Amino acid sequence: MSDTVHANETAAPATTAAATAPATNSAAVAAAAATAAATGPATDAQGEVRLGEDGKPLSKAQLKKLLAKEEKERKKAERAAQLEAERLVREAAEPDYASERYGVLPINRSAERPQRVYTDVSAINASHIGTDIVVEARIQTSRPTGAKKCFVELRQRTHTVQGVVAVDETQVSKHMVKWVGKQPVETLVRCHAHVLAPKEPVTGCTVQDAELHVREMYAIAVADRLPFSLEDASRPEAELEKDETFNRVALDTRLNHRIIDLRTTTNHAIFRIQHAVSRLFREQLESQHFTEIHTPKMLGASTEGGAEVFKVQYFNESAFLAQSPQFYKQMMICADFDRVYEIGPVFRAENSFTHRHMTEFIGLDFEMAFREHYHEVLTVIGQLFNGIFEGLATRYAKEIETVRRQYPFEDFLYLKEPLVLEYPEAVAMLRGAGYEMGDFDDMSTEKERALGRLVREKYHTDFYILDKFPLAVRPLYTMPDPHRPGYSNSYDVFIRGQEIMSGAQRIHDADLLEERAKALGVDTKDMQDYINAFRFGAPPHAGGGIGLERVVFLYLDLKNIRQSCLFPRDPKRLHP
Amino acid sequence: MSDTVHANETAAPATTAAATAPATNSAAVAAAAATAAATGPATDAQGEVRLGEDGKPLSKAQLKKLLAKEEKERKKAERAAQLEAERLVREAAEPDYASERYGVLPINRSAERPQRVYTDVSAINASHIGTDIVVEARIQTSRPTGAKKCFVELRQRTHTVQGVVAVDETQVSKHMVKWVGKQPVETLVRCHAHVLAPKEPVTGCTVQDAELHVREMYAIAVADRLPFSLEDASRPEAELEKDETFNRVALDTRLNHRIIDLRTTTNHAIFRIQHAVSRLFREQLESQHFTEIHTPKMLGASTEGGAEVFKVQYFNESAFLAQSPQFYKQMMICADFDRVYEIGPVFRAENSFTHRHMTEFIGLDFEMAFREHYHEVLTVIGQLFNGIFEGLATRYAKEIETVRRQYPFEDFLYLKEPLVLEYPEAVAMLRGAGYEMGDFDDMSTEKERALGRLVREKYHTDFYILDKFPLAVRPLYTMPDPHRPGYSNSYDVFIRGQEIMSGAQRIHDADLLEERAKALGVDTKDMQDYINAFRFGAPPHAGGGIGLERVVFLYLDLKNIRQSCLFPRDPKRLHP
Repeated sequence: MSDTVHANETAAPATTAAATAPATNSAAVAAAAATAAATGPATDAQGEVRLGEDGKPLSKAQLKKLLAKEEKERKKAERAAQLEAERLVREAAEPDYASERYGVLPINRSAERPQRVYTDVSAINASHIGTDIVVEARIQTSRPTGAKKCFVELRQRTHTVQGVVAVDETQVSKHMVKWVGKQPVETLVRCHAHVLAPKEPVTGCTVQDAELHVREMYAIAVADRLPFSLEDASRPEAELEKDETFNRVALDTRLNHRIIDLRTTTNHAIFRIQHAVSRLFREQLESQHFTEIHTPKMLGASTEGGAEVFKVQYFNESAFLAQSPQFYKQMMICADFDRVYEIGPVFRAENSFTHRHMTEFIGLDFEMAFREHYHEVLTVIGQLFNGIFEGLATRYAKEIETVRRQYPFEDFLYLKEPLVLEYPEAVAMLRGAGYEMGDFDDMSTEKERALGRLVREKYHTDFYILDKFPLAVRPLYTMPDPHRPGYSNSYDVFIRGQEIMSGAQRIHDADLLEERAKALGVDTKDMQDYINAFRFGAPPHAGGGIGLERVVFLYLDLKNIRQSCLFPRDPKRLHP
Repeated sequence: MSDTVHANETAAPATTAAATAPATNSAAVAAAAATAAATGPATDAQGEVRLGEDGKPLSKAQLKKLLAKEEKERKKAERAAQLEAERLVREAAEPDYASERYGVLPINRSAERPQRVYTDVSAINASHIGTDIVVEARIQTSRPTGAKKCFVELRQRTHTVQGVVAVDETQVSKHMVKWVGKQPVETLVRCHAHVLAPKEPVTGCTVQDAELHVREMYAIAVADRLPFSLEDASRPEAELEKDETFNRVALDTRLNHRIIDLRTTTNHAIFRIQHAVSRLFREQLESQHFTEIHTPKMLGASTEGGAEVFKVQYFNESAFLAQSPQFYKQMMICADFDRVYEIGPVFRAENSFTHRHMTEFIGLDFEMAFREHYHEVLTVIGQLFNGIFEGLATRYAKEIETVRRQYPFEDFLYLKEPLVLEYPEAVAMLRGAGYEMGDFDDMSTEKERALGRLVREKYHTDFYILDKFPLAVRPLYTMPDPHRPGYSNSYDVFIRGQEIMSGAQRIHDADLLEERAKALGVDTKDMQDYINAFRFGAPPHAGGGIGLERVVFLYLDLKNIRQSCLFPRDPKRLHP
């Protein structure tokens, strides 16, 4: 504890220990002074030699001067402590005329329903000036200025408004101001306030042209101390780069305390954009007569390949979690549903840690019969994505800007007529840029990114379809190209040089499927339900599966796919 | 084989065996006649006595008359067989001027894209008369009338049109007519046809005012023999009741061959209604500012209770499949998302077989913060369901009628102002009807149904909310009623006397949750992520979880929930 106490009206209330400490020291200093006068050597009250700033013992004169200064400070602190103590006594004795207008409410068990009218913080503006309103919000920050006034920033979701709690003769007491100042940040409160025009626009809040003069404030739920502050969690990358002393909140810390992390305005925007993507996906497909379906996630056989499948204990059998709705959406085409889509979880037991893989994610899957050529489906895919991009740009521009403020990114480029690139051309572009690659090699992540840069340069788009993948790198149910041996009627879709969708024309003939399986040495024992579905007149069809979180994370150019998933799962993360 | 052969132009082509059989019999009959004349006793060619309709031996005269009649028929059959054989020879020699206009196409590998314009069967009407169109459809039935004409009913999804394939001098040959007549039902064909007005409305088809005069027909995919006919699978219950000789297609058979079963018009309607329910659910909630979320299905701990949870092998750990998104949607409320919904699979390891339980189904879940009283949420629930019912009645009336034709049901009744019944009143109603029940007993399935009937009688509604369930029968996170000990702020929603939704105000205070867990002897070790979410200022909130398949199955009053699920899962069914 410091020997001196700086007590003034803005300080936190002094503790009893601090307030009484100077009294003890006072006697000691007096004794030291007496000792110094009697013996001559320059020692203080404890009989010790005091050193000056140059590290040498102080002379008598210097010591005397120092002791006098210390004594003066002590007396000042003593006086201040005395005043504070008296203020506390006076305040305690003072009747609190506001006692009914603040405090912690009991847990709301729906005991009453007074039907108050609540105003959303987002709705507050200058038109409310002069009126009384009730808002429910969190205390984002509080800033007492003396004992008579406290500023609180009130946040409701992503909207903030300035609140002023100032002592007046009848409504707001010093007790109330003090109580408000002591509420932990993130505490949820109900505020009854009179709306006034601020002296100047409140630039720190989203509501800039009105402020709330608080008349009543009740804590609905008091917050514990946070694991990190929302301010730290919300700080723009640019500021972090400029100043190394800022607290950085690591991704793992954020995910461990996801509830807190998700409260940031940036995260609200990210997940509104996530909602927007699936909403626009549905809007686009429903306008094109797709039917939404729900197919099982627990399967009797691991149909799509061995290692990467999660096993479920299913009563006395084993089941497997679906790695995609692939087989089922195709079966729905066989059942004449013509055009179907599904939004649901898919599970991949890949034991790897990358910035773009998770063990569970949301698949936006679709499948459609076509008449003549699978390029009919590519047209639908192009329209689908352009519809999503246009919807995001026009209806979610505010959310995109919010994310960009924290995590800056380049504008997303796309073409009115989406680019469809054929695999051989992509290979040629990469070779032209110095990459070595065989005609039928699969695309590595590095090459995908390089291709993305080359395409952006040449075609000015961050979105394109890569068509005609080599047959050998695609699943067995992929339709081979009829003209060019070694290629297939399959495609991937890329955003900013990373894959977000994979698709193909599928083999719709049972015998051809069996034949392909045989050629690839695949056992079809567990695939009979699927293969048999094609024995009753199946139309040619194609489709694709989009990773929802990937679209969001790549569109916003975030660093890690986990940032676009509420509660991500990877081989080491099953919590929260 | 019958002794007589009825051969005429409309019969299926005679087989070689049938055509040659009469020649053998001819000699035998002649011998019998000779024998009869020589010996006197009335025996036929085999020396056997022939019996009349009265069971007595025929007299000589009677026998002679019979044998003469049989000989005449034999000769007629012989002639017919001869003619048919000649016709076949002639036909085989005849050049087929239509050979380029029918046949089985090679598998469509997208080798070409001629960009034909296809007309949907649903779009065909009198306005097309006189034009040439191309349609892609299945052969639902074919009915040859002689060698020169064949009627085919063509189906595209749920729409049918009559096709006529008739020999003419230049386009359609007998060979083509024969080929069409031989195509297995459900074969997918491309038809090029001239549209004409039918002589009278085609009552058996959905397109009644136009018929297709087929000029070309190609099989895109030939169907194997079906496990059951679509006609049998589509037969109305009323007809089945009237006539016991109809084939009935058992539910298990349907589910084993779901692809075929799903092709019926009734099933198309059921799953369009299923889509409608989730679509209307989303529309309602999005218009009330709910955000769609996706929460994990693989959990690190089995949080919602022990036995009924599926275990997953998660690398070197165990994970559990989510029994509901309950905890996560509540956590999203704690993260200030205010109003959230999720549509996704939920998993229940219940080893029971009932008409209304499955091990996997689609949950329509929602959760919202409220200001004063959880009845704010009941209002939203009432609006939500009324919105769904209204949307179904107005936008899906045709589909509802389609289902009703096969599976008749009573009109669904609901009130403009939904009925909210309190538990004690329900108990009183049941007691009044002679049921024994304690104040705090849970509702059995039988009592639920009885209550549904009593409510329908008294309040004229098939939809109502039962509020204030006894606390003891609800999960530990349910908020106790503040006024009446033993009750809780929780509710179920019923359709036609069966539960389709369960919900409650949840406990939003960590300490109260811990306290309740302690009182119930529940170990909270695995619930810490959840409980801790309430330590940072959680708003009071309530919500509910609706079973999508239940809504569809009960709204349509189907017999079994499996009828409203594409690929149902129960303890014995993991396929297809």
